Order: sequence, then C-alpha cells, then structure tokens
Amino acid sequence: AEPFLVESPNVTYSKDFIEAKYTYSTVHVCKENGVTKVRPCSTHFTFRTGRQVPRLGVMLVGWGGNNGTTVTAAVLANKLGLSWMTKTGRKKANYYGSLLQASTVCLGTGPGGDVYVPFRDLLPMVHPNDIVFDGWDISSLNLAEAMRRAEVLDWQLQEQLWTHMEKMKPRPSIYIPEFIAANQEERADNVLQGSMAQQVEQIRRDIRDFKEVSGVDKVIVLWTANTERFCDVVPGLNDTADNLLRAIEQGLEVSPSTLFAVASILEGCAYINGSPQNTFVPGAVELAAQRRVFIGGDDFKSGQTKLKSVLVDFLVGAGLKTKSIVSYNHLGNNDGKNLSAPQQFRSKEISKSNVVDDTVRANPVLYGPQDKPDHCVVIKYVPYVGDSKRALDEYTSEIMMGGTNTIVIHNTCEDSLLASPIILDLAILTELCQRITFCTEADPEFQGFHSVLSILAFLCKAPLVPEGTPVVNALFRQRSCIENILR
Amino acid sequence: AEPFLVESPNVTYSKDFIEAKYTYSTVHVCKENGVTKVRPCSTHFTFRTGRQVPRLGVMLVGWGGNNGTTVTAAVLANKLGLSWMTKTGRKKANYYGSLLQASTVCLGTGPGGDVYVPFRDLLPMVHPNDIVFDGWDISSLNLAEAMRRAEVLDWQLQEQLWTHMEKMKPRPSIYIPEFIAANQEERADNVLQGSMAQQVEQIRRDIRDFKEVSGVDKVIVLWTANTERFCDVVPGLNDTADNLLRAIEQGLEVSPSTLFAVASILEGCAYINGSPQNTFVPGAVELAAQRRVFIGGDDFKSGQTKLKSVLVDFLVGAGLKTKSIVSYNHLGNNDGKNLSAPQQFRSKEISKSNVVDDTVRANPVLYGPQDKPDHCVVIKYVPYVGDSKRALDEYTSEIMMGGTNTIVIHNTCEDSLLASPIILDLAILTELCQRITFCTEADPEFQGFHSVLSILAFLCKAPLVPEGTPVVNALFRQRSCIENILR
Amino acid sequence: AEPFLVESPNVTYSKDFIEAKYTYSTVHVCKENGVTKVRPCSTHFTFRTGRQVPRLGVMLVGWGGNNGTTVTAAVLANKLGLSWMTKTGRKKANYYGSLLQASTVCLGTGPGGDVYVPFRDLLPMVHPNDIVFDGWDISSLNLAEAMRRAEVLDWQLQEQLWTHMEKMKPRPSIYIPEFIAANQEERADNVLQGSMAQQVEQIRRDIRDFKEVSGVDKVIVLWTANTERFCDVVPGLNDTADNLLRAIEQGLEVSPSTLFAVASILEGCAYINGSPQNTFVPGAVELAAQRRVFIGGDDFKSGQTKLKSVLVDFLVGAGLKTKSIVSYNHLGNNDGKNLSAPQQFRSKEISKSNVVDDTVRANPVLYGPQDKPDHCVVIKYVPYVGDSKRALDEYTSEIMMGGTNTIVIHNTCEDSLLASPIILDLAILTELCQRITFCTEADPEFQGFHSVLSILAFLCKAPLVPEGTPVVNALFRQRSCIENILR
Amino acid sequence: AEPFLVESPNVTYSKDFIEAKYTYSTVHVCKENGVTKVRPCSTHFTFRTGRQVPRLGVMLVGWGGNNGTTVTAAVLANKLGLSWMTKTGRKKANYYGSLLQASTVCLGTGPGGDVYVPFRDLLPMVHPNDIVFDGWDISSLNLAEAMRRAEVLDWQLQEQLWTHMEKMKPRPSIYIPEFIAANQEERADNVLQGSMAQQVEQIRRDIRDFKEVSGVDKVIVLWTANTERFCDVVPGLNDTADNLLRAIEQGLEVSPSTLFAVASILEGCAYINGSPQNTFVPGAVELAAQRRVFIGGDDFKSGQTKLKSVLVDFLVGAGLKTKSIVSYNHLGNNDGKNLSAPQQFRSKEISKSNVVDDTVRANPVLYGPQDKPDHCVVIKYVPYVGDSKRALDEYTSEIMMGGTNTIVIHNTCEDSLLASPIILDLAILTELCQRITFCTEADPEFQGFHSVLSILAFLCKAPLVPEGTPVVNALFRQRSCIENILR
Repeated sequence: AEPFLVESPNVTYSKDFIEAKYTYSTVHVCKENGVTKVRPCSTHFTFRTGRQVPRLGVMLVGWGGNNGTTVTAAVLANKLGLSWMTKTGRKKANYYGSLLQASTVCLGTGPGGDVYVPFRDLLPMVHPNDIVFDGWDISSLNLAEAMRRAEVLDWQLQEQLWTHMEKMKPRPSIYIPEFIAANQEERADNVLQGSMAQQVEQIRRDIRDFKEVSGVDKVIVLWTANTERFCDVVPGLNDTADNLLRAIEQGLEVSPSTLFAVASILEGCAYINGSPQNTFVPGAVELAAQRRVFIGGDDFKSGQTKLKSVLVDFLVGAGLKTKSIVSYNHLGNNDGKNLSAPQQFRSKEISKSNVVDDTVRANPVLYGPQDKPDHCVVIKYVPYVGDSKRALDEYTSEIMMGGTNTIVIHNTCEDSLLASPIILDLAILTELCQRITFCTEADPEFQGFHSVLSILAFLCKAPLVPEGTPVVNALFRQRSCIENILR
Repeated sequence: AEPFLVESPNVTYSKDFIEAKYTYSTVHVCKENGVTKVRPCSTHFTFRTGRQVPRLGVMLVGWGGNNGTTVTAAVLANKLGLSWMTKTGRKKANYYGSLLQASTVCLGTGPGGDVYVPFRDLLPMVHPNDIVFDGWDISSLNLAEAMRRAEVLDWQLQEQLWTHMEKMKPRPSIYIPEFIAANQEERADNVLQGSMAQQVEQIRRDIRDFKEVSGVDKVIVLWTANTERFCDVVPGLNDTADNLLRAIEQGLEVSPSTLFAVASILEGCAYINGSPQNTFVPGAVELAAQRRVFIGGDDFKSGQTKLKSVLVDFLVGAGLKTKSIVSYNHLGNNDGKNLSAPQQFRSKEISKSNVVDDTVRANPVLYGPQDKPDHCVVIKYVPYVGDSKRALDEYTSEIMMGGTNTIVIHNTCEDSLLASPIILDLAILTELCQRITFCTEADPEFQGFHSVLSILAFLCKAPLVPEGTPVVNALFRQRSCIENILR
Repeated sequence: AEPFLVESPNVTYSKDFIEAKYTYSTVHVCKENGVTKVRPCSTHFTFRTGRQVPRLGVMLVGWGGNNGTTVTAAVLANKLGLSWMTKTGRKKANYYGSLLQASTVCLGTGPGGDVYVPFRDLLPMVHPNDIVFDGWDISSLNLAEAMRRAEVLDWQLQEQLWTHMEKMKPRPSIYIPEFIAANQEERADNVLQGSMAQQVEQIRRDIRDFKEVSGVDKVIVLWTANTERFCDVVPGLNDTADNLLRAIEQGLEVSPSTLFAVASILEGCAYINGSPQNTFVPGAVELAAQRRVFIGGDDFKSGQTKLKSVLVDFLVGAGLKTKSIVSYNHLGNNDGKNLSAPQQFRSKEISKSNVVDDTVRANPVLYGPQDKPDHCVVIKYVPYVGDSKRALDEYTSEIMMGGTNTIVIHNTCEDSLLASPIILDLAILTELCQRITFCTEADPEFQGFHSVLSILAFLCKAPLVPEGTPVVNALFRQRSCIENILR
Repeated sequence: AEPFLVESPNVTYSKDFIEAKYTYSTVHVCKENGVTKVRPCSTHFTFRTGRQVPRLGVMLVGWGGNNGTTVTAAVLANKLGLSWMTKTGRKKANYYGSLLQASTVCLGTGPGGDVYVPFRDLLPMVHPNDIVFDGWDISSLNLAEAMRRAEVLDWQLQEQLWTHMEKMKPRPSIYIPEFIAANQEERADNVLQGSMAQQVEQIRRDIRDFKEVSGVDKVIVLWTANTERFCDVVPGLNDTADNLLRAIEQGLEVSPSTLFAVASILEGCAYINGSPQNTFVPGAVELAAQRRVFIGGDDFKSGQTKLKSVLVDFLVGAGLKTKSIVSYNHLGNNDGKNLSAPQQFRSKEISKSNVVDDTVRANPVLYGPQDKPDHCVVIKYVPYVGDSKRALDEYTSEIMMGGTNTIVIHNTCEDSLLASPIILDLAILTELCQRITFCTEADPEFQGFHSVLSILAFLCKAPLVPEGTPVVNALFRQRSCIENILR
C-alpha cells in the first residue's frame, strides 16, 4: 500500500502502474532583429511507473574496499536491526546520508502546515535492506577482514557483523597494473588470468552465476574500486561499440573499468561508475545505447565537492564575485593511497575542478567570457587520518566597493560513511528508472529514459549526460530535477 | 525599452502595464479514513505591473551609521563612476552583493544553451543610481565625517566623495535612552525635543519636506539604526492601531522604531525594519493594513546567517542529522558596541536563532517532534576588528552508522559592505511591489499585495509575514519565491 | 637505582639524600643619576632531596566528575596494563599529556648527540601507578557509573574497568547551593549535613580514615569539582587565619572549596585548587603558612589557554603587535553546564583573561603603558559535544608597515583526557617538593619551599604565588622554572 | 651612549670594546659499566665586541622582487618618518616583526619588577635606518615600478616613496634558466652576458663599485631571489673550494646563487642565503672558511614554518604524541609562481619538512627510533591572493587513553612584510658578529666566530651549521642562543 494517494485527474493508479501526467515548461530564447524574444512552451508528458518492486542484486567492483565493505555492513546492520555501545551511548544502524531514505520532500499543505514525506515514499522503490550484495576485488580478503582493514565501523559493530561478513568472498577481479597506482600491487592477490576476452567472459559468467544463486530479479553493477588513469579516446580503438568489442578481442588498451562496463551491458545490467576515470569511452556509450542498458556516473559526490557546489552557488547567487577557490584534501585510506600517484590524481582533479563552471557561466553580470575564479584542488595521502577525510577550503570573493569576503572551511568527513548511502541511492534510483516509461503528445509511444541516466547527476561529481545536453552542476537545480521526475 | 520581450499568450504589454497570467499550483494534503490524500489544485493569477518607474527617495533612520553612510556613498560612487587606486590595482564602484543588480536568473534555453539575465531586467525597476537619500540620526556628524568614522571605505574613495557627502546632514532623530545601550549616549547630540506626539509629527514633516525639496515621487523609510530591546506587547497599549496611536498621544512606552514606523505609515510611505527588534507590534501592523501601506522586515540577512541557512539546508537536505550548531560573531563597529548590552543582544539572538527551525521541521525522518539541534549564538564587541565582522561557526552532524561530520567555518565579512546592497534591494523591491496588482479567477478585482510584504523574506533574518502564514526561512525556497513573482 | 648518576663536585649522593649545589643568577636593575645600571649577582643554593619515595594517597574533591573518574580510571588501566580494541586498532593505557611521564629534558651531550631523559627520571618521584585515590562528591554515583556518565573513555575500556571502579564510592561532600550553578542541584544527593564546623570536622575525619585504611604515607587533597563563584574578601571574615576559623565556627559565608582547604591544611595535607575560584582567601593562605602546609593552584591549564600562552608569547616575541585575541569555547560536560551560570563563568573568565598580561607587559617597545590587545573569552554549554571541548581562537596582529596577520585556530580538545595527566603531575610534583629543602650561604639552615607552591604555575591558568612575587604566565619561562629546580 | 651600563667584574668597557666574561655550562653524558654518567663542565669565554658601528651597505640579489622592494621601501619610510592614511586611520612606518627592533629581552629585576629592553640595545648595532641598499635583479624595472608590481604596500605610501625609489635601478643579474622555473623567463630582461667567470667578475666589480660610490664601510650580500632547484654535489665539480673555482672558470654546472656567494666571499663580504636551495655546496663552504668570511642561511623563516616549530615544540613538550602534520600554503606572488614548478618546489619542501625533526628526536618516550609523524607540505600558486600568503595547518596528536587532539590553523601572513624585518635582522646580526671576537682559558687568542654563522638559525628554516654540529630547530632554544651570545 502506498503511504499516500494522489487524487487528481492527472494521476491514475492501476494494478501494475501509476500513471502521471506532467507538464514540463520550458522557455525558448532567441534574438530576432536585435530583440531578445522569450517564448514559453510546454510539453505534456505521461510517466508510467511499474508498481512491482523487484528483488535487487548489486554487484560492486572493489567490494573489499572501504566503500564496498561499509555499504555491505550497513545494509546488514540495518536489516538485522543492530545496535552497539560507544562511550556516548548506544548507537543504532541507520541510513543517514541517503537522499532517498533520510531526506524529505514537501507534499503540499495540510491543516497543520506543510506536509513532508520521505523521498522514498514518493514512488514504489526497493528498500535498501532488501538489496543483495556480491562483487569482485583484486584483494582476496573476505568481507569481515576487509571491514577490519577499512577501520571505518565501530569495533563493537564489527564484532557483531563478523560471522555474517566472513562468508562473503569477493570474486577475482581484473587487474591491469598500468591503470592504477603501483602501490596497489601488494593488494592484488585475487586476479583473473587469461586473455582480456576471457576475463570479460568470466565477469559475465559471474553476473549470471550471482543472479542464479541469489535468486534476484535484477542486477546492477557499480564501480567503487580504485580511480584509474584517464584513457585516450582513439579512433579505431574505443570510439565505437564495434571497435571497442574488437579491441577487447585483440587485447588492446582497454581499462578494467571499461571491461566491467562492457560485460555488464552485454548482460543487460545497468552499470554505474563511482570513480572519476573515463570508463565511458564513446564505444561504451554507444554499446549501452544499442543494448538499451542504463549507464551512469561519474564519481560519487559525497563530501567537500557537494559543499563546494552549494557554497559557490550561494555566493555567486548572492551577487558576490568569487575570485579564488582553494581546496585541500587529505585522507589515509586506500583511495588516498592510490590517488597519491600523479596519473590517478589527474583523473580526480579533472572531476573535481568542473563543479563551479556552471555557476560561473550562469552569471555573466559578474564574470566576463574569459573570467573564472582561480581554482586549485589538492589531494594528499596522510595515512594517520585513515578514512576520516579532511577537506580545507578557502573561498575569496569580491564584495561591494572593493571589499573582500573570505570563507575558510575545515570539514571532517568520514569518507566511506558518506559515500555508502549514495551507493544505495544510485542503485535504487537506477532500478526505479528501469520501471519508468513515458510518452508525450507528439510521440505517444511509451519509451524509457535515455541510456545515459542523467537523473543521477545530483549524486555525482562529473555528471555523465547524453551528448548535447549541458552539464548542470548546481546542486539545488539537480535536486529539483530528481524531485520533478519522482513527483 | 525592455531588454527582452515575452512572446506568449500569457503575457501582454500595454503602454502602462505588463500583464502576466501565472498559474500557481498548490497541493492540499489531508487524512481521510486513515489514508493520506494529496489533491493538487491551481489558482490562476493575473499580475499587472506598472511600467512607469518613479523617482524614488529613501529615508534612512540611522543615516550616519555604517550602513547609512556606506549605502549613500556607494550609490554616489556608482552614479559618479568613481574609481580609486589600491595596492592591488584600480577598483571601480560596483553593486556586488545586490540580488537585483549582480545576480542572474535563467530566462530559458537559447541556441547556445541556457540564457541568463540580471535579475534587474525581469521587470522595470528603479536603478539604484537614481535613488535619492535622506534620513535621521541621533549623531549630528555630517555624512562625510560619519563615513570616516565608519572606517568602511578605502581612504582614496572617501577623499573623492568628501565634498559630496559633506553637505548631507542627518535630521535630528528620536532618542529614548532606555531602548538602546547606554554606551550610545555619547553619540546622541542630534535629538528631537518635545512630547512623543510632537516628535512623531516632526518626523512626518521631515518626510513631506524631503519629498518636496528633492522632488521624488515616492518615499520609502528604512530603519538601519541601533538594535533596540524588545517591547512587551501590552493590551491597551500597542495591541491595536487605535491603542498605539493613543499611547503615542499620551507618551507611554513606545519604541523609537515604532514611532518612525507610525509616522511613515501615516504619511503613506512603506517602512522597512532592518534591525531585529519587534518594531511591528500588533498595533503597527494593523495601522499599516488600515492604511494599505507596505511594511517589511525584520533584520537584514547579510553574512553568517545567510550562510547558515544554506548550510543547514544542505546538510539536512542530504539526509544528515545536524546535532549542534554553534555560531560565534565578533565585530567592532557601533552595531557591535550597542549589541554588547544584554537586552539589545537578546533581540538579535532571537532573530538569529530561528533560521534553522524550518529546515528541522521539514525533516520528520531525522528529527522527532521534540528533537532540535543544540543551537548557540554569540555576538561580542571587539573594537579592533571594526566593521570587518568575523563569524566562526561549527556544525556537527550525525552521519551513517554512528559517524560524525564536523564543519568549521571562519568567515570574514565586511558588515556594511554586505548590508548596503541589501538595503538597496529592499527599497527597490518594495517600490516595485507598489506597482504590482493582481487578481484571480475567483476574485477578478485587482488588488495589491498584503501590507506585510513577505516577498522581502529572502533578505531578512526574521521574516515578517502576514498572520497565519508559516515562516519560510530556507534560503533557496525564499529565492524561488522572489523569482516566481518577478517572472 | 637512579637511571643516571651525576659526577660533579656539586652533587653528592647519600643513602637518604641527593644534595645539589646550584647557583641562581639574578640581575638587579636600577637607575642612578639617569643611568640605568645592571648588576648581576648570584645566590648559591644547596638543594637536598629526600630519596625515599612514600606511598601517596590523593583525595579528589569532585571524585565522581569527569576529571575524577578519568584520572582514577587512567591510573587503574595503566597499573593493570589494559588494552582495548577500537576501529583503528588496539589501544594501550598510557600517560600521554603528563609533563613528568611523557615529556623529556635534555641531560647533556653524549657521543651520539644530545641525550634526553624523561622528566620523571630527574629525581626520585612517585610513579602514578602507585597513587591510591579516594575522594568526595555531591553525587552518590559509584565511580563506574560516574565514568559511564562522563562519556570520556572508550566503551571497551570502561567494561574492563567496571568491576574495579564499581567498588569505589565518593564520600559525602559539602554542598552550599549558592556557590555553584543552580543546575547542579539535581546531582546533589550525597551531601554532608550539620553545621559548617561539623562538616569541616567530618572532612578531617575522612582524611584520617582514608590514610589509616589505605595505609598511605601521605595524603594530598585536590579540588577538581565545580567552579564556584568568587568570594568577597571581607575584613573580619576571611582576611586572617583566625578570622577564617572563627567564620567557620559561626557558619558565616565561607565557600565549600575554602572549607576543604582549611580541613586539609589542618590535617597537614597539601591542598591544590584545580578550579579558578578564589579558594585561597587571605585567611587560608595565612593558615597554610602557619602550618607549613603547601597550597597551590589555581585552575588546571590544559587546552586552549596553554596554546594561547604559547602563541601570544610567540607573536609578541617575534616583534608583532597582537591587537585582538578572541577565544570562544564550548563544551557539553558538567563543567560546561555549571559554567553556563553567569557567576561561575565570571570566575573562569578572570582566570583565563590574565594569561597574556605578562607577555604584553614584557614588550614596552610594542605596547605603551595603557596599551593592551582587545581580549574576549566566551564559554558556552553545548550538550552535544560532551567532553570534547572545542576552542576557536582568533589572533590579529599588526605587522610591518600597516600589514595584518590573522591566525584562526580550531582546537578539538578532550577536556578530561588533557586535564587528568596534569592532576597527576600536580600531585607528584607537590609530593616531591615536600621532600626538598634548601639553604643558601647567607642562610645555612635548611628550609622548605614557601607554602604557596609557585613551582606549579606551569600547570595552572591563574598561578598562585607568594605575595610580592610577579606572576609569570609565559609558558616557556614557567617550564624552565620547573626544569631548573628539578635539575 | 649605551642605554644601560653593566656593573660587574665580568664586564669591562673600554673606548673601543666591551669585554664580557661568560661561563658556558655544558654537560657530558656517557655510559660506563652500564651506568649513565652525567658530568657538568664549564668553559669560560671572554667576548670582546667592537663598539664602533660602521656604515653598512646591503646588496640584495633579487632587489626588484617583493622582499627586495619591500625592505628597501620600509627602511626609506622609517628613515623619512612617513605616515599615510587608510580607512582605519593614519599608519606610521615601523619595524614590527624585527627581532632586534621590536622584541625585548629581560635585563633583570628592578624596583618595579622585571625590566625589559629592546633587543637592539643589548650591544651597539647598526640601526636599520642607516643601511644603504643596492642590488641585482633579472628584471630591469626600477624599484618604484617593482614596488607597484609587488602589490605589498598601501597605495598612498607607494605614492610618497615613488620619487625616491624611482632612481634605484637593479644591476643586471646572472640568469641561468635551468635553475629556476620556466615561467620566470618573461621577467628576465636585465641579465649579464659573457662567460660564467666574466659574470662573477662583474658581480665583484659591482660590489666594489657600490662600496666606493656609496661610501659604506662594509657590504653584506643577501639572496632574496627565486628559489633554485637543488644542485648535485659532485666530486671534482663543487666539493672543494679549488674545484668550485675551476668549475666556474670552465663554465660547468654552478648555480647563480653559488656564483653570487663565491663573488661575495672573494670580495670579503658576508653572504646570506634567504632561499632554500643548496647554494652552499661544500666548495663554497670551504672557500668561506679559507677567506674567513661569514656565510649564513638557508631560507628565511617568517610565517607558517615558525608557527609550526612553536606548535610542535609545545605539543610534544606537553607530552602529547603528534601523529600527523599537514601544511597547505598558497600564495600569488612571484615566489609562488616560481615554486609552482616541481623542481623548485622540491627545494622548498625539503627545507620546510625538517623543522619538526629535532623536536621528535628529543622525545624518545613518545617516539621510537623509526617513529615519525606523517608530515606533508604543499605550496600552491593562486594568483588572486597575491602576497597575502595563506597557510592552513592541521596537527593531530594522540592524547591520554586513546584520545585525539586536533588543531586546525588558518594563517593569513603578508609574505614580504613578514620577511623584510628578518632580512634586516640577518644583516644587522651578521655585521655585529663581524665585530665580536672571543677567547677561552684554553685558547687565549682572540678569534672570530666560525665562518658558518649558526647564530642566524633562529631566523632560517634550514639552518646552516658548521659540520658536526646538530641542527637545532626548536624555536625557543634558538632564541635563547641569540640571547645568550648577545648578553
């Protein structure tokens, strides 16, 4: 039973579907004879959402990493209703930090004022407790040992989870040393052998095997492993679906993440990239489109980057001219270790640098065409701080009459505890999108979303969008986008 | 000429008016037989905006204070196109920090992507350069000397403005010592004498005199003087318009700011309260409604409070449970000096404390009915820092599985340089609202906005709204509200 | 056996004593006929230190508070050699933060460079593991429950300590409500009855009882309970030892802490005041002198204050003119709760404000006679942060040619974990001083230190010194002072 | 006339000299038969200081840089007694930040307590106002234009200095592109031509020319130009004085800074290195020793590094175990621009990393032999902030029983305004040392200090000391060292 019922001629409920009519208003701007003309226009959409929530399986690449173990442990702890003592009292398993589970949306106005419901209640969705996890890792540690290595969860919670996690063993993964930092070699004791094509084939078998053994209805694959170096896009190599498949056959330069994406797409499973590298070379995007499989990414947006979007949006939106943005990060987990290699850091740096571009471009009053704030991003590996990532930001803005505003921020973010709920949101939103089709008056045939799932943008640093669509990084616009589609 | 033209059946241009049809969608939520029902409904508004922009005069109470001198100087410097040298190069007069002048709004999509225009271009508005200033102050310093005392503007700019500002002398003001800090006494050398009623009469004469001498079409009065202590609302004294007027006749306890508000309303001039005290006792609100005069406030929202709205909105909106918010402020200008007295600080504290309430109430998933973050606000007077206000904030939030996120912020805000553009925005928006009327299908007679001008909420810390309307502090919702009405 | 042996004609070892000759050089400055004359002179001291380390008992007033439970638990955990698991690995009991146990001093130069030894090895001292604790508290919770209430120690460590701590029960304490915050009333379920004189008598009996039952050789009493409001020094009431004793007889206004001090002195036990109130009214000081009993204090210097001494010393010592010092503190433990009452805060504020005075006075080049930095200290009670005290400081200094240097600090200090090792140091140093006597050439009779034990200054915020001695707050000078005497 | 007179058998004044006897106590530590033995011993020094203060000329390499122009302008402004208006009032030229001019030392105790005198009054020294400046720069801008480019001094001050500074033109300098960042090329329009030997010859002629034209008695040369990349020490090339001179003859790899050092030494002028590169290759050190010329360095210690020394000293000295130190710096002046090249940054990184080593080594209780805090130093070029360098530091320390203390600092340091007074101190101290000789009882012949002038250590990040002497970075020990020698 839905927690609420929409009584409107625009919404109809059937046994299998919820159908909602939605008018999407856009405005076209053009210049005619020196006059800027603004023409509002509307498209009438009908969104049809399947009400049958399937059993969902999520396979993580990098299952034994900090994110992988933390999200698996968190779901287990929530499902089992665990609690544990700390010096400040008893803690309970929760899903804080999940947009779907822990944030709300305004339904409307009731007798007692505005009425808010959890995001998760807007449409029928998979509950995170019901997700079944599996995955791959280049390290052979079982999930219990990997959880201990991660040093993320309170010890008493780890103890309660131990026997459950101990049985989970990551499947051997694809390891091509040149793509990740050399310092990862010591972890790589659980890797596939054979030709590139054979390895892709094995990944596909793994997906089928997991589906069969676990009995889930649907599988989504999500990369939460090491950041790889960027791949050159080379005509003939990875520019088309065919070339990419041929390159794999011939064992040419294809990154492990692209191999996982290809295997996943070929199995009809949505694939989400939680790291910044360009997994989705043009050939991979084309392949997804051909197979009508969702892909999404790149790079989870959890801590400082999210805050930066918000702040720059706020500053420039208030008419202040932000002139320099300096972001220092340090962390001591394996992500930090891998990023301490220059090529891997380069992938991250690119992903993080773009988040203010939209905001700056949106204010031609303050910023001329070539005008951009100085923007500097640093990530350092400091083992002692572990998963407790530190972000130090400085924003300097020009205010009225030559004045200056300086905002300095120190942010202590638990890296994996902030990323894990986002992994859940990404998987659940992607599954939901697979049950939504829409049509318009002009095109009355029901169709699914574009295979490049731009609705995930809010949750990613470097949003992947269909070609020709502008990237919209401004955080609050992204959030409304999700709200709009879900409502 | 308008900078753009809307081509739509919903918008029509006549010589005197722009008329826009706007459908305002709301949703009613109710419980029936245990089922939450959601009923969308729409109201069709027609907004009619007069195209004739009048000459606007703004009278400031506290004209010789830091805000008063800075906003006056800024408008002069912009009008004269001044520039001046500093060690980092030549600076030019500007309106950075003004929502209307320096921030933009997305018009729609053009061939090259999204098209943004300055807020000020959405509808015909007064340009700040054209505002004529006048005002009152308990200190007799002329505006040039007061500008030097303020220590806000670069010295070379002051030198260029000196001869212009020197001629401006604040009119004698109302001084009732018990309402402001005792340390203000030494400034009070320019105060009205006579009975309370006589003083109100003099203020009314001042308004008429200014209007006549300056030739402006309209006057708006704005309080940017000292924060007063709170006033008790006492039946028979200030609970109705009649009682309030009688109390003034009899010289009972009425605060200077309420006296200014009454004088202003009686002259038909909109009155805006830029400080936190409860100027608008029920009798003053009733008087404004009777006379159909706009009142708005309270307390400019310029620096840390704005940032706090944004951050708490962001944190809770991301599903994190903010548990403690600690805000320390220090400043060394006369505002800080006055606030160093406990009763005046109390007014400020109340005004600043409420900004997170909406956000917390909007997330019943995270916060139970009695559940609120610890919230502590401190303001200290530290002469050395002058107008360069410092805000140190700490936000601690619970994240997934017992983790903690701590954000620490140090914000160096030039107090008056951030407040001045807001003063301009408030005056210009208020003037614009005086030219807007609207009707609905149900009530086809055109009428003006409610005399309590809630559209100003975005710019105020403790938004004054018509009775029965919930206060909406969340900054981004407030901004859309302005955008909606202006579009 | 001593860990090292001094081979010098100036140092002699006997069975019972170590005797060291030490030349203390001072310089006298005077003005004669307009010429400043500087005359070095030396005093030759012989220090005699008893080698026999006694069994030491420490009685804490406020034993059940955060400091009391933490120091007791820490000593137990160290003695038992406990360790416990946390998410970042196994932790071991230690004495980090103790000047005597964890910091070192340079002995001299060896073949491999400078040779450093722990402070504790300089002279024979009590080892903290050997201290026996007892004490009083107005709350009847046993030490195990009190430790849990304190929320200071990791849960797994608490579990291991539980059965040991459970047996310890604080003795009923003296409770005079007007001296501490009203919010402490709910804790006060373990208080002495009877007249003031009877209560003092009971405290004396408690000391004798503890000594007898525990078999310790010596008892030191240390106040680590609530900060009290200041006491007026009133002639006839508390200005002489006799008057003070008479006031107690008559039940006049004497604070609980002074009552404890008197009881302790009368029992011949040194008394240390770890809070800022003026326990040591002139009558108490006189009484201590008469009885040749050591007293010391006031107010442990653990976190931000220590850092402030260091920084201001550094800045002014580097020739920069510090102009404003703003210190914000918040904490959520019972100390914070008690300090949220204005009178108690006042005691603390005075104690904290003086730490920069010495440094400023020492630089007449930068600071004229009336010239002082703006200095503002705030302490707020924020329950959520618990014992994890936060200190936010801002230092603004003038540098060359009109420039400004601004240092902003955010310091997360675990309040009780930083104070506990200082409690140990204070007790152990005091005990050591009781075994030291000295004579000079001029006065060859061996005598003990002055009963006001100024050597403890390094560890206290508002150092109590013998009348006529200037207070020396500069941290590094204080430290050398300890080093000098110990060497 | 001296401002004070020492009346002591140990101090004698003659017309030309002040002679002071000083007993330097040291302690020898050794192990004999398993027993650590400590043997105090004393050396009796006689220090003889010439009372005749010469006219001092200082030649700066990099005269047109931010430091060069600022120190020159500051001395001029002080000499001319300039003052200028700013928004916060009138500013006067001063020497804040100079150890010698603005900090004090305790002379002794007078009737009114401790008596403090400025450092500069301890012995007869050159007054900075009397220093005559000259120098070299690879940029041909005159000093007025260079001062404007630097954007360091208030504009009104620049205007007053303009005509004075305009006449000063840097002499052509040595430019070897491979030693500094490629981005410096555009500045290099004022460079010497000819062979390496010819260029050294020209520098020597410049020194002689300056001395002759200006009439100064003494010249000291100081490098405040770009940080160079490190030089390999290569046997046969730069390992001995002879080899180094031969390498210059043959035009082999010798850095510009070493060339300046050699020229300076050959002219008998002390040479100070204010940058971190290894100017003083072994051959240069040997040459200085042969010629009995003082050399000193490396790298001015002005801002964050000084603060870091102090803080780590404080933390570890308090018995806390600092585990991670992360230092982020950004600046936008030409120093930052040059350091944005990796090789130049490497020189700086090494210089900055060592400052905590001494402190850590001095506490074997906390740190085992292989135990060191994580330590990370980042410097980024952010043009917008200009000379207003920002330093963000994070110190994490283990405290008692598994607790953690985290200190986060944001420091806004005006780079050149902090460095300039140190340049003056270095020059004046060096000159003073040239007038001091000493003898001991064992070696009654008067001699000068070692040519490697370690007394400058307090003012440098990577102190250059005579071989075999341990580097002592701990700031307070360094300061006492200066105090000891001067007293």
